[in-house]
Amino acid sequence: MNAEIIAIGSEMLAGDRVDTNSLYLTGELNKLGVEVVAKCVIGDNRDRLAAQVRQSMGRSAILILSGGLGPTEDDVTREAVAQALGRNLVFDTAIADWLAQRFAAAKRTMAEVNKRQAYVIQGADVLSNDRGTAPGQWLEESGAVAILLPGPPHELKSMFQRHCIPRLASIAPKQVIRTLFLRVAGMGESDLDQLIAPVYKKYQNPVTTILAAAGDIQIHLRARCETEAEADALLAEVGDPIELLLGDRIYSRNGDPLQVVVGDLLHKLDATVSVAESATGGMLGERFTSAPGSSQYFVGGFITYNNAMKMELLGVSPEVLAEHGAVSQETAEAMALGARARTKSTYALSITGAAGPETGSEKVPKGTTYVGLSDAAGTISVNRQFLGDRQRIRTFAAQMALDLLRRRITGRP
Amino acid sequence: MNAEIIAIGSEMLAGDRVDTNSLYLTGELNKLGVEVVAKCVIGDNRDRLAAQVRQSMGRSAILILSGGLGPTEDDVTREAVAQALGRNLVFDTAIADWLAQRFAAAKRTMAEVNKRQAYVIQGADVLSNDRGTAPGQWLEESGAVAILLPGPPHELKSMFQRHCIPRLASIAPKQVIRTLFLRVAGMGESDLDQLIAPVYKKYQNPVTTILAAAGDIQIHLRARCETEAEADALLAEVGDPIELLLGDRIYSRNGDPLQVVVGDLLHKLDATVSVAESATGGMLGERFTSAPGSSQYFVGGFITYNNAMKMELLGVSPEVLAEHGAVSQETAEAMALGARARTKSTYALSITGAAGPETGSEKVPKGTTYVGLSDAAGTISVNRQFLGDRQRIRTFAAQMALDLLRRRITGRP
Repeated sequence: MNAEIIAIGSEMLAGDRVDTNSLYLTGELNKLGVEVVAKCVIGDNRDRLAAQVRQSMGRSAILILSGGLGPTEDDVTREAVAQALGRNLVFDTAIADWLAQRFAAAKRTMAEVNKRQAYVIQGADVLSNDRGTAPGQWLEESGAVAILLPGPPHELKSMFQRHCIPRLASIAPKQVIRTLFLRVAGMGESDLDQLIAPVYKKYQNPVTTILAAAGDIQIHLRARCETEAEADALLAEVGDPIELLLGDRIYSRNGDPLQVVVGDLLHKLDATVSVAESATGGMLGERFTSAPGSSQYFVGGFITYNNAMKMELLGVSPEVLAEHGAVSQETAEAMALGARARTKSTYALSITGAAGPETGSEKVPKGTTYVGLSDAAGTISVNRQFLGDRQRIRTFAAQMALDLLRRRITGRP
Repeated sequence: MNAEIIAIGSEMLAGDRVDTNSLYLTGELNKLGVEVVAKCVIGDNRDRLAAQVRQSMGRSAILILSGGLGPTEDDVTREAVAQALGRNLVFDTAIADWLAQRFAAAKRTMAEVNKRQAYVIQGADVLSNDRGTAPGQWLEESGAVAILLPGPPHELKSMFQRHCIPRLASIAPKQVIRTLFLRVAGMGESDLDQLIAPVYKKYQNPVTTILAAAGDIQIHLRARCETEAEADALLAEVGDPIELLLGDRIYSRNGDPLQVVVGDLLHKLDATVSVAESATGGMLGERFTSAPGSSQYFVGGFITYNNAMKMELLGVSPEVLAEHGAVSQETAEAMALGARARTKSTYALSITGAAGPETGSEKVPKGTTYVGLSDAAGTISVNRQFLGDRQRIRTFAAQMALDLLRRRITGRP
């Protein structure tokens, strides 16, 4: 069962304004097993809104409109929906009386325009508003439902909870929603999709969604079925082969970000980590310490942004820097070794690279990144070439360092 | 001149996801004098998107689509727009070659699906993407313009700025828009608004917008007039009293973030800075080094996340830590002193605090933050109590450190 949402109001189209009602409504509809397939914000224009209402009601079972139910000429929702469905507006004396009482109780005079709020689309049920003056409306047309709700979020939420959720639950198909959530490091989006698309493309249910950030891909599988057992079986049918294909590239199955996964591994081992950062300038430390409780495993480290600091703070030898350069395997390994020796941490991670835009050369092109890792067993390093702007390259680099440590701890080279 | 915006992607319809691209695009279109009259988010469904495209192009002069240009089957924008306009998709060998080169340069194999990105709607102009693999498209139909842009915000912004703004400016109605852009540190949003609202509330033109982040408030004044002189006069009429009220809390008049403003000050003085971070764990270093060219003044520093590291890496004395605690004026000053002594930088900044959620005590409540600053003239510190979650407190702390250095350099205590 599909739904669409339309927010009405020119003020909702400002460059700093977000339609939060649609976020709330989407969450509630999803809980009922109803999927939101489109949402719009339309300015205060009756014809444009009527066209959108016709289109949405022609293809989706539920249309929710928010806003435009106020007393002024700008409030066009009643008229636009009536126009879209070819129905009349009827003056509802019960609403008019209720409005008059409300104003009297507040010892305020009711402006003549407020009577506009007493008009109801022919055949619609009135939804009472316990937080404001604009009543809502519920109407049906050719098997589709349109619900008119007031724009102020506290009015909308109260009305939706009291009147709409019970009524929608009775018409929504009975169903259970189960999700599988995987996070993957160290793969590009298109490589990942090419690998797993042959599995998930065959299925409309579960719905598979892939979200990619720098070095970090999230895969969501959402199964909707009549019973939990069916949903779990479907998730296993699609999820198991995907997990098999991705193997140890999957670092999280509960949504935890990589720094939390690595932190938990360190904490369980009673191990500690330190960092030595050049190109990332503190981003790796910031990632580690963004996790509450990180003081249990993260001790600290060094930001060595020039060669002098690499020598003085980490003991990287002038010869290594002269011979191999600051962006090299040798420097990365010497940085990690130096950080571990100075902090006595179990593990030390280092990052050196050319993040651009002005760094980088023919020998060491922009995006070149070396990550070093030192522990009691020795010191290793890996290198990669990343694409993108400065901040993206740095984000990739920090993610690669965290993933290198995850692999080292879990014995997956 | 009216515009509509459609964001494409089922993931954009989640209950916790906001289409930020449309906010950016609205801001830019408004600057061009173009009004946004409707915007939509449509899931990955070709027919539904095609219907929306037909409707929008039938009533508005400009339609901007974002997302759905990736390489996978889910990416339906090219097909949907072609379907809406009854045009064919044409394989563009120049794009295919460019994609192949891009992958070769990164030493990666191009997945077969990436070739989907080389299809162009018949008659469309290709918009190059300097941040990713999805080219954009610009096409015209019966006097209306449709622009297809990639979904990732950094790709969309770069493409829109480089290709679309100049071209839209040539078709948009002539009007002059002048803006005043102020950035303010060290004030809360409501305090600031209480101070300046009496000035700006009287004016519909210029439009005043206030955007607040942790410790960082942006004030935009936008005047639209027929002539530059009129617009400048209006901006001065409203902007001058605001600048007078805010005084040296204004740190930027050109949009530069605080780390860039401080970096420029350091660079002009031929001075350097180092950091010693506890609670922020690297965030201050990350901020400094997010600015291109920061190696000219940022040398590096220390992340000392526990007492042992504060003693060993920075030489904070055990007595200071025992007597005053890690979150104290004395420790902050000793950290800054230690960082400066060890790096020989002109200035050293330190941060120590209780960012929570589990840190903090009766004596040192969550949010307590000390920032130290050491230079040739001596060592000072300031403390503040911040509200919010862990990441917000840390962001406040890093901003406060940057602002302390700005005030020190410019002689404003």
